[in-house]
Amino acid sequence: MRWNDLREEACPVARGLSVVGDRWTMLILRDCFQGIRRFEKMQERLGITRHVLSDRLKKLENAGVLHREQYQQRPPRHEYLLTESGKALYPVIVTLVDWANANVPARAGSSVTLVNRETGIPVTPMLVDTTTGREITHATVGGRYSEPSDAETSAARSPDDGSA
Amino acid sequence: MRWNDLREEACPVARGLSVVGDRWTMLILRDCFQGIRRFEKMQERLGITRHVLSDRLKKLENAGVLHREQYQQRPPRHEYLLTESGKALYPVIVTLVDWANANVPARAGSSVTLVNRETGIPVTPMLVDTTTGREITHATVGGRYSEPSDAETSAARSPDDGSA
Repeated sequence: MRWNDLREEACPVARGLSVVGDRWTMLILRDCFQGIRRFEKMQERLGITRHVLSDRLKKLENAGVLHREQYQQRPPRHEYLLTESGKALYPVIVTLVDWANANVPARAGSSVTLVNRETGIPVTPMLVDTTTGREITHATVGGRYSEPSDAETSAARSPDDGSA
Repeated sequence: MRWNDLREEACPVARGLSVVGDRWTMLILRDCFQGIRRFEKMQERLGITRHVLSDRLKKLENAGVLHREQYQQRPPRHEYLLTESGKALYPVIVTLVDWANANVPARAGSSVTLVNRETGIPVTPMLVDTTTGREITHATVGGRYSEPSDAETSAARSPDDGSA
């Protein structure tokens, strides 16, 4: 499989990674979620070249994750805002933060805690199934794959068939 | 910031990506979650070189995400299993799957649905705060950063300070 083919995959992990799997892209999105909108500010925070940042922003725009808005006419200047599709990536960031806080030690003393924006009270994220209210874990939830030709008959393989 | 420095960052997004931010790593983990344990099988599914796969598996082992177990003595053969830390990455995969299903169109007809392994009933993931039971969104939850020197006094910046 070539990386550029990922978007064509039936597997949603591969399709998702075709958009956000690049190593800098998630850090750009992190900054967007923190209200950073302007190219220069992003470049300063990430320490990457203009070329790389410009390329990643263009890809996120093409994928419908960011949209570009002009905030100044002469000379023309733009800023980057999360679309609804982009905002919908927040759970991916939060689950990654939660995992890293528990599993990848930080420098002694420093930390980032997830807190309720209104109350400042720390939050403990848990992924649940809205239908049952039960926690989603690898033991309880899997992926069911359907081939195009099977779609009409709703035929599907078992959750463990290796295609999720 | 250089990529190799990410692990030293206070930011848990960066630290998390230092382990799973590589483009192939999440696909390797996807396969592990589907019960794929052996090198040859992974290589066949991913279509990457032995060198790249070997390197990524070694890094995941060093990070404590996978552990290697010998299943044959002559010649020695190993398989790769998710550790508890590795299994704890499942919510990252599930939120990515859920986002991609809604935001990155698949080939016509094919799909992967998240289902309850016991009942086969589709699940709808939602990230909630276990304390309040309320959904975690960008509007309600942010990151609060604490400097090492601030740790003793619990000093912290506001959720939107740009450090989560």
